[in-house]
Amino acid sequence: MVENVCVFCAIVSGNAPASVVHSEEDLIVFCDLNPITRGHLLVVPKAHSVGLADLPEATGQRLFGTGQRMAAALRRSGLPCDGVNLLLADGEAAGQTVFHVHLHVIPRHAGDPLRFHTGQRGASRSDLDAVAGLVSAVL
Amino acid sequence: MVENVCVFCAIVSGNAPASVVHSEEDLIVFCDLNPITRGHLLVVPKAHSVGLADLPEATGQRLFGTGQRMAAALRRSGLPCDGVNLLLADGEAAGQTVFHVHLHVIPRHAGDPLRFHTGQRGASRSDLDAVAGLVSAVL
Ligand SMILES: [Zn+2]
Ligand SMILES: [Zn+2]
Repeated sequence: MVENVCVFCAIVSGNAPASVVHSEEDLIVFCDLNPITRGHLLVVPKAHSVGLADLPEATGQRLFGTGQRMAAALRRSGLPCDGVNLLLADGEAAGQTVFHVHLHVIPRHAGDPLRFHTGQRGASRSDLDAVAGLVSAVL
Repeated sequence: MVENVCVFCAIVSGNAPASVVHSEEDLIVFCDLNPITRGHLLVVPKAHSVGLADLPEATGQRLFGTGQRMAAALRRSGLPCDGVNLLLADGEAAGQTVFHVHLHVIPRHAGDPLRFHTGQRGASRSDLDAVAGLVSAVL
């Protein structure tokens, strides 16, 4: 059973320790064990889903709503928090390391260690239109 | 009026160009002008909100639901997509550059240019418990 090997399922069932911030019907919020910044939280569905593909959309919506409330709480908490990143990594290629879907809520402040190295650069309108066509065709 | 100076409001009103993937009642999806990877999309509420604090929670939930559907579409689109990041930057300290809230949907593949430099390291259980207490106290 996947529950026997999944660390987040073990936390949900009380078989692994966690610093729990909040628990509601189908979601739990606890502190990331390896915080990027102090206050780095994870919002986790109690039922095991690997990623976005097997996450019920209603649960995903609540995941985000709870993430939004956690962001507001971090700003009120007294922890350094001038901004917040919400981040979800779906798949190993996206940096997912625990294969039980989770939303990172990361308080940010000037001088904190998080950096996004993006290699971002402009694209032509014709290429952007081609991309939009490829995606809209499969909606 | 903020609508006169906000580039995303200009796109919503048809006064600025965009490669639109999808439009629904209160959300629009278009290609990021400076894509991190080919297929980098933005999910944007049509009504202007600066960030998470002034985003109605119901809209936030639909923002995520649409982001989840876009992630699935990217995986079906034929574009290189072995994983997906959902990313929201709330506030300048979090890397927000357009102050009209938006969710990035970024297709990922091995060798793409996106890197998260996190400086992540472990924290003591007692500090994690202190953090959890600070946040749960203001929920
Ligand atoms: Zn699990
Ligand atoms: Zn706007």
